[in-house]
Amino acid sequence: MVKDCSTDTVAQAVREYEGVTRKKMIGNMIRSLRIESPDVVASFGEDAAVIRHNAEDALLLAADGIWSRLMEADPFWAGYCAVLVNVHDIAAMGGRPVAMVDILSATDDRIRDEVTRGMVAASSQFGVPIVGGHLHPETPYSVVDVAILGTARMDQLIFSNTAEEGDRVIAAIDLDGRVHPSCCFNWDSVTMKSAEAVRAQIRVMEDLGREHLVTAGKDISNPGVIGTLGMLLEVSEKGAVIDLEAIPRPDLAAIDLPFEQWVRMYPGMGFILTAKEEHVEEVCRRFAAVGMAASAIGEVDGSRRLAVRYLDRETQVFDLDHNGIMRIFSEGETCR
Amino acid sequence: MVKDCSTDTVAQAVREYEGVTRKKMIGNMIRSLRIESPDVVASFGEDAAVIRHNAEDALLLAADGIWSRLMEADPFWAGYCAVLVNVHDIAAMGGRPVAMVDILSATDDRIRDEVTRGMVAASSQFGVPIVGGHLHPETPYSVVDVAILGTARMDQLIFSNTAEEGDRVIAAIDLDGRVHPSCCFNWDSVTMKSAEAVRAQIRVMEDLGREHLVTAGKDISNPGVIGTLGMLLEVSEKGAVIDLEAIPRPDLAAIDLPFEQWVRMYPGMGFILTAKEEHVEEVCRRFAAVGMAASAIGEVDGSRRLAVRYLDRETQVFDLDHNGIMRIFSEGETCR
Repeated sequence: MVKDCSTDTVAQAVREYEGVTRKKMIGNMIRSLRIESPDVVASFGEDAAVIRHNAEDALLLAADGIWSRLMEADPFWAGYCAVLVNVHDIAAMGGRPVAMVDILSATDDRIRDEVTRGMVAASSQFGVPIVGGHLHPETPYSVVDVAILGTARMDQLIFSNTAEEGDRVIAAIDLDGRVHPSCCFNWDSVTMKSAEAVRAQIRVMEDLGREHLVTAGKDISNPGVIGTLGMLLEVSEKGAVIDLEAIPRPDLAAIDLPFEQWVRMYPGMGFILTAKEEHVEEVCRRFAAVGMAASAIGEVDGSRRLAVRYLDRETQVFDLDHNGIMRIFSEGETCR
Repeated sequence: MVKDCSTDTVAQAVREYEGVTRKKMIGNMIRSLRIESPDVVASFGEDAAVIRHNAEDALLLAADGIWSRLMEADPFWAGYCAVLVNVHDIAAMGGRPVAMVDILSATDDRIRDEVTRGMVAASSQFGVPIVGGHLHPETPYSVVDVAILGTARMDQLIFSNTAEEGDRVIAAIDLDGRVHPSCCFNWDSVTMKSAEAVRAQIRVMEDLGREHLVTAGKDISNPGVIGTLGMLLEVSEKGAVIDLEAIPRPDLAAIDLPFEQWVRMYPGMGFILTAKEEHVEEVCRRFAAVGMAASAIGEVDGSRRLAVRYLDRETQVFDLDHNGIMRIFSEGETCR
């Protein structure tokens, strides 16, 4: 039983959440940036771009950043997250993160040092080296951006736009964490874990891709579990109905966290996936084996609408046909 | 004959040039960022990081950015340069540029659109697609950063730190250009050229690497031809004396450009290389074939000092043993 939960409040909270609304497409920009290239298998709209390399290899390239509010509130966590979101981007594609470059602007030495400390902490923990970078010194603002290179085999990639009607929707989240003290919309399940533990979680996605156990997937990012599913459905041109009660969650009452806040959080480790019915159990088992709660939360349909259901009541969150979320450029997380 | 040239004024102008002084190493930052990883063959200090992939392939990753002053003075050129400097970074290593991601912050729609137009122009011209990105919307500043992926074979790489005593120093620059109207320290030899012409220039470096015709190389970046040579010598732990008169240059009198400004300019297409005596002629021939002026300008020695010579007078520019340039993080160019 989800305390104080109504489908209307959840739908509205998700729909109006800044993490979601900021995903609006800058249509002209994308259209003008896109250049046809035979080796580019996927680009905007996926968590990482995919470039064919030789016959069977794929190179993955992504970039993500953190700015201002989080940088000033907690530069260590901002640096840590800059690495984390990039590692997620590669993992979400079924890839293996290989190396990163960072671009840093900092208003002062303290912020620069703390951001660096955060990046190094995450880089060491996840085993993904920072191999180069660029510094804008003495800027009147603080931003950290990271770009990441990953690799995969072409036949083990997991895309966002390949969900099919009848697939089950699976949410997988590491519930063993805490609301981050510097950011009420960040669920930190990572800083307190061993390198071995977080690397095993990341590797699950690689295994799922290689064994073709899922049909589509994304890392749960700023828009939270429902918003991220909305983006996956949007690029897949599908819809879904999900059961709010099925969404993995910690003991919310114990930590006094409203359900509509939980579903908007950026989890330290979380993925939204679609899979054939016959693979659901195995997929959930793989996540459980690395300490993540995973469960089937709904089913993909052809409606191009995402609705949430609770106690026989159903409310539409997104009409993806008419009002896309359009996360073509993603945003770094912030706390409001 | 170089008009109004003295070794002292040139040495001082180069030494005190912001493009050079901004290269000072942020030692702690580098030391703390560096994580040992067996597949990372090169990282900080090279134009691009090199990651071994499979047995014989190398993946190259670099990042570079442009900020504030140039963004506001000429956002189109800033966007164009953000791509150009990254393409140079891969070419300098003997690699082939494959794809880029951009991270953009813009104070207003006009800057955003113009930067994008500049990036697209360079991306199309050089044939290197932008495959993804990240947007920081509504920021109080304007910055564009680009990260680039390249590929090479392990045995065709050109490094910065491999110059050897007795090697000849070669400077290669496309002189067919103009001082960029928005930035007096940018020599634009690219925007007016065909895609075919600039791609052929970039490919020369790949050929030189594959055929092992050079011992070390860098693209001429913000610090200009002498400053960039200084950085190459620094990481190679060598020195050199160069002849100012041998540096390729346009008709400076005709365009009223002081020599000490010319040697500090960022050329649209320029490389500094070292090569064995027996390969100098062939290297210069390759550049000439694509419209670039190349000539031997000096010789590598073991002194760890870079000096300039003109009319029998010699002046030291850098004592690399005691005052390194330390371009560990590079800066985007600006105009002062």
